[in-house]
Amino acid sequence: MANNLWVLICGLLVFAMTISVGLLEVGELGEEFGNSLLKTMLITGSALVFMAFIGFDTAFAPTIDGFIGNPIYGGLFLGGFSPTLGGLLGGVWWSMTPTYFGTSLTAGTYFLFEAAFASVTLALVGVVALRKMRLEAFMIYSIVYFVLIWNLPAAWIWNPTGWLFQMGMRDFAGGLVVHGAAGAAGLGILSVIWLEEKGSGLKESPRVSCKMSQGWLTIAILLLWMGWFGFNPGSVLAFNYSAMVVVVTTFLAASASFLSSMTFKMFVSKQTPGLLDAVNGVLMGLIVITPLAGFVSPASALVLGLIGGPLFVTAEGYFNRFKWFSDPVGLLPGHMVGGLFGVLMIAFFTEHDFASASGNPTLPNGLLFGGGVAAVQQLGIEVFGTVVVMATVFLLSFATAWVISWSMKGITNGYKTQALIQTPVSSKNP
Amino acid sequence: MANNLWVLICGLLVFAMTISVGLLEVGELGEEFGNSLLKTMLITGSALVFMAFIGFDTAFAPTIDGFIGNPIYGGLFLGGFSPTLGGLLGGVWWSMTPTYFGTSLTAGTYFLFEAAFASVTLALVGVVALRKMRLEAFMIYSIVYFVLIWNLPAAWIWNPTGWLFQMGMRDFAGGLVVHGAAGAAGLGILSVIWLEEKGSGLKESPRVSCKMSQGWLTIAILLLWMGWFGFNPGSVLAFNYSAMVVVVTTFLAASASFLSSMTFKMFVSKQTPGLLDAVNGVLMGLIVITPLAGFVSPASALVLGLIGGPLFVTAEGYFNRFKWFSDPVGLLPGHMVGGLFGVLMIAFFTEHDFASASGNPTLPNGLLFGGGVAAVQQLGIEVFGTVVVMATVFLLSFATAWVISWSMKGITNGYKTQALIQTPVSSKNP
Amino acid sequence: MANNLWVLICGLLVFAMTISVGLLEVGELGEEFGNSLLKTMLITGSALVFMAFIGFDTAFAPTIDGFIGNPIYGGLFLGGFSPTLGGLLGGVWWSMTPTYFGTSLTAGTYFLFEAAFASVTLALVGVVALRKMRLEAFMIYSIVYFVLIWNLPAAWIWNPTGWLFQMGMRDFAGGLVVHGAAGAAGLGILSVIWLEEKGSGLKESPRVSCKMSQGWLTIAILLLWMGWFGFNPGSVLAFNYSAMVVVVTTFLAASASFLSSMTFKMFVSKQTPGLLDAVNGVLMGLIVITPLAGFVSPASALVLGLIGGPLFVTAEGYFNRFKWFSDPVGLLPGHMVGGLFGVLMIAFFTEHDFASASGNPTLPNGLLFGGGVAAVQQLGIEVFGTVVVMATVFLLSFATAWVISWSMKGITNGYKTQALIQTPVSSKNP
Repeated sequence: MANNLWVLICGLLVFAMTISVGLLEVGELGEEFGNSLLKTMLITGSALVFMAFIGFDTAFAPTIDGFIGNPIYGGLFLGGFSPTLGGLLGGVWWSMTPTYFGTSLTAGTYFLFEAAFASVTLALVGVVALRKMRLEAFMIYSIVYFVLIWNLPAAWIWNPTGWLFQMGMRDFAGGLVVHGAAGAAGLGILSVIWLEEKGSGLKESPRVSCKMSQGWLTIAILLLWMGWFGFNPGSVLAFNYSAMVVVVTTFLAASASFLSSMTFKMFVSKQTPGLLDAVNGVLMGLIVITPLAGFVSPASALVLGLIGGPLFVTAEGYFNRFKWFSDPVGLLPGHMVGGLFGVLMIAFFTEHDFASASGNPTLPNGLLFGGGVAAVQQLGIEVFGTVVVMATVFLLSFATAWVISWSMKGITNGYKTQALIQTPVSSKNP
Repeated sequence: MANNLWVLICGLLVFAMTISVGLLEVGELGEEFGNSLLKTMLITGSALVFMAFIGFDTAFAPTIDGFIGNPIYGGLFLGGFSPTLGGLLGGVWWSMTPTYFGTSLTAGTYFLFEAAFASVTLALVGVVALRKMRLEAFMIYSIVYFVLIWNLPAAWIWNPTGWLFQMGMRDFAGGLVVHGAAGAAGLGILSVIWLEEKGSGLKESPRVSCKMSQGWLTIAILLLWMGWFGFNPGSVLAFNYSAMVVVVTTFLAASASFLSSMTFKMFVSKQTPGLLDAVNGVLMGLIVITPLAGFVSPASALVLGLIGGPLFVTAEGYFNRFKWFSDPVGLLPGHMVGGLFGVLMIAFFTEHDFASASGNPTLPNGLLFGGGVAAVQQLGIEVFGTVVVMATVFLLSFATAWVISWSMKGITNGYKTQALIQTPVSSKNP
Repeated sequence: MANNLWVLICGLLVFAMTISVGLLEVGELGEEFGNSLLKTMLITGSALVFMAFIGFDTAFAPTIDGFIGNPIYGGLFLGGFSPTLGGLLGGVWWSMTPTYFGTSLTAGTYFLFEAAFASVTLALVGVVALRKMRLEAFMIYSIVYFVLIWNLPAAWIWNPTGWLFQMGMRDFAGGLVVHGAAGAAGLGILSVIWLEEKGSGLKESPRVSCKMSQGWLTIAILLLWMGWFGFNPGSVLAFNYSAMVVVVTTFLAASASFLSSMTFKMFVSKQTPGLLDAVNGVLMGLIVITPLAGFVSPASALVLGLIGGPLFVTAEGYFNRFKWFSDPVGLLPGHMVGGLFGVLMIAFFTEHDFASASGNPTLPNGLLFGGGVAAVQQLGIEVFGTVVVMATVFLLSFATAWVISWSMKGITNGYKTQALIQTPVSSKNP
């Protein structure tokens, strides 16, 4: 029962993260934010309903040839009206039985936890759609997202019968499945937006104006930091020694990245660091540690966090050069770069004892801990899985957005994006 | 110990709901809100002190003839100075022993959980008092409320020796005990306010102006949604399979109601849905599922949630026609209508296996699940109990408010309610 | 495992308190608060990193002659890169073994909990530095604070081999170690600030202007109240009957102090109480009960809370007379006075049965419960320990701030503090 209690509480903390991303948008971009907040409430509601409808099965039911979960395994809506189906009342979800992960989670617990993950992933994607994409278009996109786009990487990497999992790929709490894939999905949407913008004669993508609101920014980072207490330690899917270590690695990486971020800004960029730098520093540390929080030591977490700060500042400078999209909240330099960097670091920083304690006994030591050939092999697997997942998610997201664009005659706000710069978007949304 | 841990954490989440209702008022009605927030802090403080003083006993001690809990059973203040009285240190509260519910909760755990329930119920009542009733009048009302008015329905329906419980009535987490009764108590106060307003020559009750604050509204709904994670699943009073199912039914109903609310507004009312519709949709789903979250399947929760959205929109239109009171935050169309509707649905949607798992083995299947005669009988009991409780609470609330009005020469702000429309009330309160 | 689960969740709640103190500053003093919030984020990050680096050991490792924890006991960063050192993965922290407290907490759990305590203590100190002290100066101060200043009192009183603990001194959750010591450290910084201000020709210390923000104030007190659910009940370091009692004593004291605060303001000071009085009342109740929440009955908690309200109002009037410092958020009348008052009350209100249940079997009954000579002896020990700790912390804090002042040529904002009154400080900070 302790495992279920732990994962359920962690699930609640992750649940709160989606709306917290809405508050983060508001904190970074300004208070004319009706649609930012409405959008994250919509994501939360859609995630729960469509994951319960079918998405939980496509991701976490026994897979069809390792490729996708059996969509009708548990019955629609977690067993529908039946009290006996689906392992909901008295049973254990199949992959939590001793044959697989052996953590005894019930269908209900595991559903809440993973639906919250799916939800927050789309919230990350949504930050690039902000104030550009019509709400109805985003609503339709979200249905496809929770039935298919989010679910494939989860089925491949987190489902014990998925083909990448079988190949040996690991991604502890979603450096790729959440953060990397969110970046790929976001790029898909940004491409369709740019096609529309270019089609209407624009030379570069208009940028939304930013007006920081420090109170909301602080509440957002507090809720997100607390959410990550559920996100990473909950991903052990059990309450054991490893879960307690993951709390430490997660929080240390966040703090280290915060400190390195501030210091880097001060001494290398020669700028005065402010609250936004602090927030981005904390977030980058949390993102970087996500894919390997359960595989590494506290000191490694510190090192990874210290790298996180400068990595974000550098990546942000790089992505700011592009003129065909705007990414004011930092999906690409933060979540995509940080998540993928963390995935690669698995092959460097993993220590077998930590990985084993978190339920990943097949993971070898990393290169920095004498992993040698096995670690190089692991690196190859991680790179391969990353490329496949990023390409798949980008294509699916692009195709989905393109079809919606085609059928709704545009996903941007009536093609009047130029006006975005002068007037608040919220007043133009339908 | 797991049961105590679960209910204690759930109690904390419910505890936060009272002040969250204050933030909801502020979010819906505007930021000149000193007294809204002060009021909900006052409710929180009063609830804890007066429930500990005597109210916990009048509700949850062994009843006198099924009518009211023995007010001196545990000793004042949970055993007072004594370390041995009250089952506080090392014992189990009498109704949590195997003879009754068998969940082994201690007096302390059960007290915190139920005091938080009493508190949030008055917070709901308080939304109609907002900016109309003098704070001192509300303070005095709150004492009577926590010693008697909240407690009688709880003693009758949730206390295993209560007369309605004995008759077979069930109300899982308070569709009647909390939401319905809050509506009845609110109507009692509104009636006295109207008597005063009519007495001072008004033709209709002045309305407070509304000025939505989207950030506070969002924080409020996030905290309330998280609070309901404690409210419903905690009401199993144990951490078991049922508690995990209740998380799912609760969250699915909220999400479904959100989606149906938005869709109904868009396609039936032909209006653009906004953040307020979203918030009301989520709330209505949470309210409707409350009295039967532990009795139904996930698919039933979805259906109930889908009904919730249109039900609120319709009820709101109905109550808006009345001119003798104003209910800007929606106590009546939301909490009263939603709560009572959910209570009636017990006789339709209950499935015995779910009810049994949540500790209610005597509850028969509902009419939709082949309950037949037993379900009709259950419907009769639920209707009877509802009528009795609503009438009792209304009369007690009206009488209390009337006596306070009489002794303080008016509970409204110095009879100058007309002025409410022009100037913020906060500056007029004493 | 239940103990670890409980303390970890409590640790998360305490973790949130540091940034909540930032929101409290903003709520009380106004929204030009970039640096208030940045400061509390900085404190959070520093606390985790420097406590992990060495501070956790100086406080909680086996002490060197009872004076300071062995700084290299667990290895830097909680065992560094090693999976076996430090009791992190599979072991129990030495003082949590049956030889000492016997609660089986792991190094990770105990670290998170105590790092959060250290963090919030500095957040309290920081409220007097607000808008006066340069951020870089405060950064350097924080490193010394988390390596030495916070740690000595903890090593002496909370470490089972500390010399004051051995002498019999007890301080349940930090009336002295947190609140009293925060006051002493704050006085140290205020003294250096005053030396600088006097040196620049000022006759009295300039005061920052206050502009209450009711929303942020409410969120802050809600988060702090919820944080105290972790702070006090978590300090049992186990989930047992005592932890559940401590929830009750903590929440009752807060509520009682709230009510007495409001009543005192209304009837004795003849003023209309407002939200700020409410917030201060709740806080004072929480502070006063902190050092003895696990030693007393619910009724005693009520009495202590009732004393808390008037105590704060009186103390605030007293400290307002001083012209050489300004303490707008109430570190001294609230945390210092309340914390030390509570410590003294240990010798009056303790009941052996409650103390024993919380793991303090050597504590005798207080004077009000027939403790007699043993209670007087306990009073002597508490007074002695308080004097020693307050003097030590004041001197260390003063010396640290003085050295920083000397090496940075001033810790105040470029000696232009006079201007603080007219313009927002945030724009002047580097």
